[in-house]
Amino acid sequence: MTDVPEADRPGSSTASHTDALLDRLERVVGAAHVITDPDVRRSYEVDWTGRYAGEARAVIRPASTSEVVEILRMCHAAGCPIVPQGGNTGLVGGGVPVDEGRGAIVMSLRRLDRRDAVDLVSGQVTVGAGVTLAALQRHVRGAGWDFGVDLGARDSATVGGMIATNAGGLRLVRYGGMRQQVVGLEAVLADGRRVERLGGLLKDNTGYDLAGLMTGSEGTLAVITRARLRLVAPQPNRAVAVVGLNTLADALEVVVALRAELTTLDAVEVFFADGLRLVCERAGLRPPFEVPTAVYLLIETADRPAAPDPAHTLSEAIARLGPRLVVDASIVTEPAARRELWRLREAHTEVINALGAEVGAPHKLDVTLPAAALVDFVDRVSDLVATMAPSAKLFLFGHLADGNLHVNVLGPDADDDRVDDAVLRLVVDLGGSISAEHGIGRAKRRWLELDRGPVAVEAMRAIRRALDPRAILNPGVLVSPDGIAAP
Amino acid sequence: MTDVPEADRPGSSTASHTDALLDRLERVVGAAHVITDPDVRRSYEVDWTGRYAGEARAVIRPASTSEVVEILRMCHAAGCPIVPQGGNTGLVGGGVPVDEGRGAIVMSLRRLDRRDAVDLVSGQVTVGAGVTLAALQRHVRGAGWDFGVDLGARDSATVGGMIATNAGGLRLVRYGGMRQQVVGLEAVLADGRRVERLGGLLKDNTGYDLAGLMTGSEGTLAVITRARLRLVAPQPNRAVAVVGLNTLADALEVVVALRAELTTLDAVEVFFADGLRLVCERAGLRPPFEVPTAVYLLIETADRPAAPDPAHTLSEAIARLGPRLVVDASIVTEPAARRELWRLREAHTEVINALGAEVGAPHKLDVTLPAAALVDFVDRVSDLVATMAPSAKLFLFGHLADGNLHVNVLGPDADDDRVDDAVLRLVVDLGGSISAEHGIGRAKRRWLELDRGPVAVEAMRAIRRALDPRAILNPGVLVSPDGIAAP
Repeated sequence: MTDVPEADRPGSSTASHTDALLDRLERVVGAAHVITDPDVRRSYEVDWTGRYAGEARAVIRPASTSEVVEILRMCHAAGCPIVPQGGNTGLVGGGVPVDEGRGAIVMSLRRLDRRDAVDLVSGQVTVGAGVTLAALQRHVRGAGWDFGVDLGARDSATVGGMIATNAGGLRLVRYGGMRQQVVGLEAVLADGRRVERLGGLLKDNTGYDLAGLMTGSEGTLAVITRARLRLVAPQPNRAVAVVGLNTLADALEVVVALRAELTTLDAVEVFFADGLRLVCERAGLRPPFEVPTAVYLLIETADRPAAPDPAHTLSEAIARLGPRLVVDASIVTEPAARRELWRLREAHTEVINALGAEVGAPHKLDVTLPAAALVDFVDRVSDLVATMAPSAKLFLFGHLADGNLHVNVLGPDADDDRVDDAVLRLVVDLGGSISAEHGIGRAKRRWLELDRGPVAVEAMRAIRRALDPRAILNPGVLVSPDGIAAP
Repeated sequence: MTDVPEADRPGSSTASHTDALLDRLERVVGAAHVITDPDVRRSYEVDWTGRYAGEARAVIRPASTSEVVEILRMCHAAGCPIVPQGGNTGLVGGGVPVDEGRGAIVMSLRRLDRRDAVDLVSGQVTVGAGVTLAALQRHVRGAGWDFGVDLGARDSATVGGMIATNAGGLRLVRYGGMRQQVVGLEAVLADGRRVERLGGLLKDNTGYDLAGLMTGSEGTLAVITRARLRLVAPQPNRAVAVVGLNTLADALEVVVALRAELTTLDAVEVFFADGLRLVCERAGLRPPFEVPTAVYLLIETADRPAAPDPAHTLSEAIARLGPRLVVDASIVTEPAARRELWRLREAHTEVINALGAEVGAPHKLDVTLPAAALVDFVDRVSDLVATMAPSAKLFLFGHLADGNLHVNVLGPDADDDRVDDAVLRLVVDLGGSISAEHGIGRAKRRWLELDRGPVAVEAMRAIRRALDPRAILNPGVLVSPDGIAAP
């Protein structure tokens, strides 16, 4: 906080601050919602992995868009950095203050939790940025609809945070990510001016797609306060299969065939023999087949209530793939049995983290490869890790239909990112993305230009500068705001 | 062309110009592709409605991205405005030079017509900006796929132009518009720097969505040179119904019910008794029912080859709506019969234009209303036209499932836009969009701020300024580049 004038330095945790800006902010949101007590601040200053942490001048918790407007006006005038925060479930350090250097304020949007009635005619809903995914799901399911994005952190992740990071999740193959669900946004620009487009219009060619631009911008272009979201028809008629295969190439052939045949594919996940072995050992799960295979697909279909027997449809589609591709398969429909199969895939994260508690935290990379390069990538990343870190363990799993693999490397020290660097360079060489769904945040900033190229990064920087000339919105995140004048 | 220095003024149509810039451009694309002959230029200078026309310094026809790069470098250095043009099928004057005032050059992208092989694994294809929609359709259908957007101008409209205007078309209810088909772009910024992201990655959270931003930006942010497009599985198993109803409210209830029940809805179009009467009289079509109804829906479903009888599925769904909603219905599957029903809707444009040739060109507005405001809008727009122009004729038709109505007013003089203004103000009052699919171009510029509000328009202008500081890309289109320094 070296740049902060003495008078503007963070004050005590009592109601009356030596910090004039915080005094003014208290008049906007009330003293209870300008948090300076270090113990209370802490949960907003550290991300949930514990890897990214810093110190905020204060945490402010507005309850309405007009309070957000007032806060940004004041912070813009004072040149005070703002770190917008939702459920603080991010993985790349994009929602916590780390290195702002000007006494950043964390703005938690969780109190913007209004849920408007579901619009049954359009199949849309308008909600506040602070509504959690779980609360959104309960709300729309109560009205006979569902939401197209689902992910593990549903109890904490907020709509605003999910939009700011363009969250993907478990059903992207069917419904797309958050960008595909956002029909409109209300957001507040860095200087406190509000933009709003919440009419839910499906066709609207009136200039640049500002909502699409803000989606995935990681809090650097505006603070999202409300969203109009499209809903999807519920598909309760579900079947889950685990399919064992000999090679990843076979798995890709299965994906292509199933996509062409089934309109009901909700998820196609992949994991491998070594990951499954770890999951079964450590999470006490039963392997799906007596004889292990090299590659596993977890496939979920979901259909309307009146649809014919989903297990039959899925098992026929799998049978048509033939024994050349399918070594073994297990198909279930009962909720408990479906959950049990899903655990095989979902437990990967926890058992890898548990192993990391013993041998050192896993290096986690979240990458997309073009479909045509996936097999090559898996071969080469295995060789690469074996060569660079012979004692390291590599676990891969992910969303195969999206080309999205989670690369987990256990072994190298936490601050030794040579393997990370080599893996990400391999991804870029093969035409992939260094961040499939987690975003850039702080964690991937140094690789952004490698991936997107200098022209695209400079274009992003120019856009950022245009919308936030004082660089107060999440300045440490995404593209460095070089050339942006400090106020 | 008052700002153009004498030496840079448009020259003759011979190979050697008095215009130094054109001489340099000829060395890039060859003399045959820098067109200055007024007769040849003409088809590039006038839009197909004949309403928007101007004079270009020249028309340039690059054959590759690297030629586009060179052209933009030179024009940027010279401060010469560029009007990018695809198939010149736009309706809002966004692709022709009108009022640039600095001797604009039209850049036709039609020679960028390369079609790469369809990627069968990802279901995607990369094509040049100049590929027409019809050529794209032939290309991907030959590989067992289809493209999600279709529209009447398919033989002329190009992929680049459709992306620049975020074209919607006939099947938006199922697949979305162009923005939903674009997986990646190659584009050239105003100063000749190239950005490219053509890997076809479905999950890619590496900064701002530049491709999405360029989609719908009407040639003001970059010149699109190539696109990676998602394809859809062919749905050849089609059924078409015309349904007669008593009220628009009933029609909306039908849309909601069918959307909830059918995953195969490809189109839901609406037209009214007076439009149908005109179509039957002038295009010699047979009315679908003996007794006319007030409102008609044209519904198309499309399913996979192996799907059960589509006419049966559709007719059962319509039967379940019951006689309270459905006055009459006709369902067909044979291609000739389907085309005949579609003619009832598609012939609206031509018969209204033909009537316009007698009474004066129709004022055409293309608006979206929130679903909840559609009935109110139709009532009020009828009253409004009857009050303001008692002798005028009003015809409405459109894409009901998208809330998109085409408003045609015949009667007021071509340059009398008081009714247009009143209708667009009504649209904005009701929370709608003044341009559903045609874009802003020149035609709707004066209403853009009314619709989007001053903050959003200023944000657009700031983005435009950031990416094209000399305002050479389509300067007369979309947001006026106020405050952008002329070179």
